[in-house]
Amino acid sequence: MSYKNFPMVSRVIFGRGSFNQLSEIIEPKRLNTNAPFIFFVDDVFKGNAWLMSRIPLSYQDKVIYVSANEEPKTEQIDQLVEDIILTFKERPSGIIGIGGGCLLDIAKAVSIMLNNDGESKDYQGWDLVKNPAVYHVGVPTISGTGAEVSRTTILTGPERKLGINSDYTPFDQVILDPELTKDVPKDQWFYTGMDCYVHCIESLNGTYLNTFSKTYGEKALELCKDIFLNNTLSVEESQDKLMMASWHGGMSIAYSQVGVCHALSYGLSYLLGIKHGIGNCIVFNHLEDYYPEGVALFKQMKETHNITLPQGVCADLSDKDFDVMIKVALSLEPLWENAIGKNWKKTITPETLKALYQKM
Amino acid sequence: MSYKNFPMVSRVIFGRGSFNQLSEIIEPKRLNTNAPFIFFVDDVFKGNAWLMSRIPLSYQDKVIYVSANEEPKTEQIDQLVEDIILTFKERPSGIIGIGGGCLLDIAKAVSIMLNNDGESKDYQGWDLVKNPAVYHVGVPTISGTGAEVSRTTILTGPERKLGINSDYTPFDQVILDPELTKDVPKDQWFYTGMDCYVHCIESLNGTYLNTFSKTYGEKALELCKDIFLNNTLSVEESQDKLMMASWHGGMSIAYSQVGVCHALSYGLSYLLGIKHGIGNCIVFNHLEDYYPEGVALFKQMKETHNITLPQGVCADLSDKDFDVMIKVALSLEPLWENAIGKNWKKTITPETLKALYQKM
Repeated sequence: MSYKNFPMVSRVIFGRGSFNQLSEIIEPKRLNTNAPFIFFVDDVFKGNAWLMSRIPLSYQDKVIYVSANEEPKTEQIDQLVEDIILTFKERPSGIIGIGGGCLLDIAKAVSIMLNNDGESKDYQGWDLVKNPAVYHVGVPTISGTGAEVSRTTILTGPERKLGINSDYTPFDQVILDPELTKDVPKDQWFYTGMDCYVHCIESLNGTYLNTFSKTYGEKALELCKDIFLNNTLSVEESQDKLMMASWHGGMSIAYSQVGVCHALSYGLSYLLGIKHGIGNCIVFNHLEDYYPEGVALFKQMKETHNITLPQGVCADLSDKDFDVMIKVALSLEPLWENAIGKNWKKTITPETLKALYQKM
Repeated sequence: MSYKNFPMVSRVIFGRGSFNQLSEIIEPKRLNTNAPFIFFVDDVFKGNAWLMSRIPLSYQDKVIYVSANEEPKTEQIDQLVEDIILTFKERPSGIIGIGGGCLLDIAKAVSIMLNNDGESKDYQGWDLVKNPAVYHVGVPTISGTGAEVSRTTILTGPERKLGINSDYTPFDQVILDPELTKDVPKDQWFYTGMDCYVHCIESLNGTYLNTFSKTYGEKALELCKDIFLNNTLSVEESQDKLMMASWHGGMSIAYSQVGVCHALSYGLSYLLGIKHGIGNCIVFNHLEDYYPEGVALFKQMKETHNITLPQGVCADLSDKDFDVMIKVALSLEPLWENAIGKNWKKTITPETLKALYQKM
């Protein structure tokens, strides 16, 4: 038996207002005045002086706004990398992602591709990256995805939605400032928070689980319940705790994997462009056969917060559409093996998945 | 307000038998055949083929046995560093510590001092280290100290017992193999496990606490209760969980500090050479005024496991002896500030501490 040797985020700072320390943190990493820091920022922050005025810009440093309306694509990463290489005399000193899972994944992927030849689609998979990434920093502004702590960056390529999983993917630095999540709309707060909740359920019920991942998953699950069920926390406490739930939930995947929900949700996302958080919610709502307790609790949380999920998202799909989604979902073998066990192919057939998708 | 930017262990591997992967992990870090790996191993493992046969030795690599009967001293570190420099043509490729807190701290301190001039006593304190340490690996063989994850290495110097706290102190690699703890004697298991328990109590009741540290501390405390109170775990589960409790308990100190028990215990250790784990137990047993719930639970655990603590360790001490211990304890200002608050000097006087020591 061989165990994974997990690469951790090198440095982490936590605290309300810790974003103010961005400049003192990154400045020592500046290689020279021609090697800029590039800040990828979610375009919802355009014109938001409260946040933008605190991004320290010197020399050639540049802010690039990116929309998170669609999830990151491999060709988008390749374009961003090419633009950077053509615009600047030198490789950047660092890449800083400021936003949710999309922006964090863009920062990770761009920092990898700046130091690795070819196209990003060639690196989708496990341990295909050859060279260390450019110094990269993650600043989450919404909590739940675990992208701040994971060793993957999830991209939709021409053939599949799959992460670049590698030892070079994790951030060199993460800034956990819960105050940055204060303006997240309620629906989005719920959907992204549920990404963390689903990580915990899938990890804790997976066959890959060991004590390392279990302790992180249990703590994250406890925090999620505290936030989404009890509803007795102050606004600040709730922000602080959800940011830590996301962190621990992400760490819980280190020796585990996600499961049925993520596999199906990747299919929805690939075909219909449904975003990850809401996609997970749409799928998880119908997984009582796989995660009975987890789904019951999820429905209670949904009710507590008056969340209405889209219905019939698969109503008008053709057989060919279903086949596309099913192919994407079935290709994620480690997720199924974690969820069901080594013999997962006996029970998880295209028909099983089609029946599930048809309910959504 | 400025927050600490916490340096994490770069890589961690967890699993029963993961120690077998030591060779594949360190070999890529070999600089050349003249730059050896030095393994500091607790001398209780001398002649223990089960462990020693799995230490991979090539070229100039060397095992150095060290007794953990006494806690690491600054002059011991300086001597070990000098021996290495005089023996080998080149700086080591890496330093591997295999043992408990003492061995882990020796590995950390030696790896720092190989790349920093002067004597190790000059680096006792906070952020005094100038150059990155030599690659260093920690392999705990007993659980509880948190040394595997901390940014300190605690040394007894000519003037004080104090850590080298720095961003370069944390291990580059930690191997968490709970199976390695299988032969720990019961008393030692309890004392060192209680180091973790006390970390949780001191961190969770400290004024420095924030949500980051709280979530780690709560999980570690829950695991400690599970292990030391409930007594329903299998031997393997108990080993696995205590190794994770130690890890999370150590992380809990990131944004917190230890407190009253550690301050007093450092005094005992400095004057009488009482080791850290048992010293904490002797002190904590008398701290009901500071940690009423924590001490009550501690006494319950002690009873559950039939642990008898030494009595009257301070019975024959002179006034001068008490002054020495009190001076060491009072010098640890961050610990008192965390435990009591900014105005700690109003209530924590030499008389207070003397009265406490006299009970022990």
